[in-house]
Amino acid sequence: MCGIVGYVGNKDASEVLISGLSRLEYRGYDSAGISVLHDGELTVKKAAGRLKNLEEKLQEEKVHGHMGIGHTRWATHGAPLDKNSHPHNSNNGKISVVHNGIIENYMEVKERLQGLGYVFYSDTDTEVIPNLVDYYYSGNLLEAVKKAAADLKGSYALGVMALNEPDKIVATRKDSPLVVGVGDKEYFIASDVPAVLNYTKSFVYLNDGEFAELCKDSLQFFNQDGEQIEREVTEITWSAESAEKGGYAHFTIKEIYEQPKALKDTMTGRIVPGKKVKLDDIHITKEMLEDYSRIYIIACGTAYNAGLIGKVAIENLARIPVEVDVASEFRYRNPIIDAKTLVIVISQSGETADTLAVSREAQKFGARVIAITNVVGSSIAREADDVFYTWAGPEIGVASTKAYLTMLVAIYSIGIYFAELLGTQQESYLENLKKELLTLPEKVASIIADTTRIEHFADKIHTEKDVFFLGRGLDYQIAVEASLKLKELSYIHSEAYPGGELKHGSIALIEDDITVIASLTQRDLLEKMQSNIKEVVSRGAKVMAITFEDNHDVEHFSDEVIIIPNTMDLIAPILAVVPLQLLAYYVALYKGLDVDKPRNLAKSVTVE
Amino acid sequence: MCGIVGYVGNKDASEVLISGLSRLEYRGYDSAGISVLHDGELTVKKAAGRLKNLEEKLQEEKVHGHMGIGHTRWATHGAPLDKNSHPHNSNNGKISVVHNGIIENYMEVKERLQGLGYVFYSDTDTEVIPNLVDYYYSGNLLEAVKKAAADLKGSYALGVMALNEPDKIVATRKDSPLVVGVGDKEYFIASDVPAVLNYTKSFVYLNDGEFAELCKDSLQFFNQDGEQIEREVTEITWSAESAEKGGYAHFTIKEIYEQPKALKDTMTGRIVPGKKVKLDDIHITKEMLEDYSRIYIIACGTAYNAGLIGKVAIENLARIPVEVDVASEFRYRNPIIDAKTLVIVISQSGETADTLAVSREAQKFGARVIAITNVVGSSIAREADDVFYTWAGPEIGVASTKAYLTMLVAIYSIGIYFAELLGTQQESYLENLKKELLTLPEKVASIIADTTRIEHFADKIHTEKDVFFLGRGLDYQIAVEASLKLKELSYIHSEAYPGGELKHGSIALIEDDITVIASLTQRDLLEKMQSNIKEVVSRGAKVMAITFEDNHDVEHFSDEVIIIPNTMDLIAPILAVVPLQLLAYYVALYKGLDVDKPRNLAKSVTVE
Repeated sequence: MCGIVGYVGNKDASEVLISGLSRLEYRGYDSAGISVLHDGELTVKKAAGRLKNLEEKLQEEKVHGHMGIGHTRWATHGAPLDKNSHPHNSNNGKISVVHNGIIENYMEVKERLQGLGYVFYSDTDTEVIPNLVDYYYSGNLLEAVKKAAADLKGSYALGVMALNEPDKIVATRKDSPLVVGVGDKEYFIASDVPAVLNYTKSFVYLNDGEFAELCKDSLQFFNQDGEQIEREVTEITWSAESAEKGGYAHFTIKEIYEQPKALKDTMTGRIVPGKKVKLDDIHITKEMLEDYSRIYIIACGTAYNAGLIGKVAIENLARIPVEVDVASEFRYRNPIIDAKTLVIVISQSGETADTLAVSREAQKFGARVIAITNVVGSSIAREADDVFYTWAGPEIGVASTKAYLTMLVAIYSIGIYFAELLGTQQESYLENLKKELLTLPEKVASIIADTTRIEHFADKIHTEKDVFFLGRGLDYQIAVEASLKLKELSYIHSEAYPGGELKHGSIALIEDDITVIASLTQRDLLEKMQSNIKEVVSRGAKVMAITFEDNHDVEHFSDEVIIIPNTMDLIAPILAVVPLQLLAYYVALYKGLDVDKPRNLAKSVTVE
Repeated sequence: MCGIVGYVGNKDASEVLISGLSRLEYRGYDSAGISVLHDGELTVKKAAGRLKNLEEKLQEEKVHGHMGIGHTRWATHGAPLDKNSHPHNSNNGKISVVHNGIIENYMEVKERLQGLGYVFYSDTDTEVIPNLVDYYYSGNLLEAVKKAAADLKGSYALGVMALNEPDKIVATRKDSPLVVGVGDKEYFIASDVPAVLNYTKSFVYLNDGEFAELCKDSLQFFNQDGEQIEREVTEITWSAESAEKGGYAHFTIKEIYEQPKALKDTMTGRIVPGKKVKLDDIHITKEMLEDYSRIYIIACGTAYNAGLIGKVAIENLARIPVEVDVASEFRYRNPIIDAKTLVIVISQSGETADTLAVSREAQKFGARVIAITNVVGSSIAREADDVFYTWAGPEIGVASTKAYLTMLVAIYSIGIYFAELLGTQQESYLENLKKELLTLPEKVASIIADTTRIEHFADKIHTEKDVFFLGRGLDYQIAVEASLKLKELSYIHSEAYPGGELKHGSIALIEDDITVIASLTQRDLLEKMQSNIKEVVSRGAKVMAITFEDNHDVEHFSDEVIIIPNTMDLIAPILAVVPLQLLAYYVALYKGLDVDKPRNLAKSVTVE
């Protein structure tokens, strides 16, 4: 994962780098470090743990200079220790590197360099890079980086400086994100736009295999063959403030409260009563759709959980068979893909490595790819044939909330769009569904308006070690996402089961006082689900149920009931997940955990 | 779930019933009871908990008679208390009933009977039945049971006696299993054959909606309309001893050790080197197969886990898209099924209620159904279009082991059979695969020959609260089954993750000293999987790895390594699951748990 940033210009580099890293911490926070050209040396300062450790260190050991690179790390090779932190310098101290990605052949390169007398001090894959660049260096950093890159297998975004070429940073990328910020006599590199958005709004998105040479007074781009190329500058319209916490204690709760707006924004202009669904960046015709024998929805983590609901929604609305799989599994199992296959990939960041790889592979086999993503101009968005942008705004909390809810809007919209193309549903039914979808922002607002009962329940269960979620039909998919949220935020080992599967093994775990959280939003399955609840109650479980206003039965055998407004069964997940997000948040608060940055996790998984 | 038994003849009924119940305890063991016509009364004796409680009670309060019914219960409605135990008598004590199944409209019937003055003492659904039969009774038990059955919705297998008609039992069934045993001037009813196999080897499998009237000197069958019908008697060739424990401490370990034989038996005559796979009870032609646009594999619990591997095997071998789903989810989600769909259902007992329902529903929509089951003549086998019988022999341990392994043989055999029909694979590859499959019984035998390391590791982890299983590709499906085994047998909250999904949330649960069990049998994925192991090791996890002989790398970063013999990747699950079954068994032993009958579970889930 990791985040990188770089600066060359007239400002104090340390300040720019720390500012950038503070906005990249969501990409990893095992350690942080900077390298600044200071007093004729590439001076490296690093510290394990959160960025504040580095900041404290810099209070005592100040470094000043006008060029530097910085890094915030999420450990992959080597434990989160000082020695494994970035930046890494070459043995002679003349080359400094920050790296995001994984070098797959680093053992091989390391042995080769050891044979040449280079010595290695860390457990990282990255440390081979500065030494390899140094080995190739003969006065031209760009040339040396190009040669080094040609030797590397794996994924990387790199920022490289050379002691002998002050005021110059060379950057390149392969399968890891990198943007170049364009200022007035100053230039930036960063893993993403918000890192340096307070300094500039003009960016170039570097493509795989391209190189950038940033000097104080010039910015040049080169392709793989070393030919100079022109790159378009994109103006960003986000404000830096929009990614700040506002008045909330954490980004996560802020983002939960932003959900009514995010939902509304995402539906705007797309779902309009009396009109067919309008999706500007999706160009699929009726004829094309009739030709697809099946749809794959591929994603990771929370986006995968949105895909699970996508399967139910699209199969029900458009009657095309849909299969959902996690990207890291799908890509390695020789899946059956051809031109009769439509692939929908979902990724908040648009940079998820495994999902991007699936998208590319699918296109290679002739499949059409629709991307659902929150980030305009991200790799997945740029490469897909069609795009649905969720307009959730930047999501900083590592546990996805508003992005997830808008992904659901995306899949419902696509489902209705397909149904309208194919004529698989009554117009009146689709009209009702659209009208009902438009009421959901208001209904979500009513859920988050009073969190008393949820906080009370969170208090009750926050010392639990294990929690089980139960559901049938879409209530199972709700349970899966609710369970992931609780895991991510509270570190409680929670697991979701389909109600009917309990008896086939998992009920062995149910004992006195265990907490079971049941979702009951699917009217046809209420009775069966209530039977499953009775099974766990009769074995001593304490039950919290989520259900809709009209269902009064469940009170009789549940210890707590959280009520959500009535809606149509198919879109109930948009409402039912919200109290469970809040529950996960408050449990984490009661446990005193770092809600926005759960341990071991990073926001955007750009390595495999 | 529940098991029922009934006897009419010249022997002491109590003894026959207790003997039968002792062989039915795998169907539930929350309570047991019998009703015997004794001293001019339908005398009921019951006791909560295991059968031995009832036996002790009967030592003191003997009941003698030549006719009786018995029941062993798995609680669904009402806690496992004396008052909820079966048999249930009518208010006036003149009708006695045992029931397996769930009466869905019992509340409605109860209110109606209450209106007529009947009083209810238990929380069960069953108690309405004796009173309803009593209400209709006017001297002819068969007529009364028929009328009562017409009022009942749900599933049931019933044994009914009337005080006024000594020496007569009336039995009927709907969606719950029931067999009639035919002796010499004595007759039996039972939920399955082994219950009374020590008394007779001749059985009639009652069909849904049929009635049997058992008297000491006569046995008659009637259809729904009351017309007398002839029913065929089947001779059973199993010996009662084959379902006993032999020299082992538990059925579960006995069945693990029976796996080489079960595998060999299941392949016999089907997989022969140099010949195409031969499946006598599957009648699918090349033309039919080319017409199927997709295959669904539907099952519950362990059989579902076998289905997960079936998807990979069949997609890889025959290149037909396969979707796997749990039966209780699939049937309620309006799945896309038509005559172009092939459905494979898997159920050890052949009586799993949700799986049976899916099979029926699929046939209604024109799909062809292949059943994979261990029980000849079971409902699922009888109703399917094609059958693959796993020849694992009776499985008594509640946690499935040998049945699971033979289900894998079934799906590999079907995969190769399809590939041979369609010509999707090189003959030489299929020939190698067959030869390799035939070596697996020997290789499994070599794994179970020395369990020292596994016992040692089981001892180390038996006090853990949480254990995580990791794998990629087929190693993930192995992890899923291994995790279920550990849950069922040891009550440890274990969960399986695909290696690549860890970073998307679950890794938040990894902390110092947590136990992670990794499966590494898929050669193409070794490197990626080793990266995932390093990720958890660097966060403090203790790792046990399962891998094949040739892989030596994994020793360097695992605390324990269990080695399995080399084989082809596609069929590695048959080997890799075995040490993990043993691990679950030994962990349960170290915890002092009841291995053969885990809490809350029953062998065959014949209710939804």
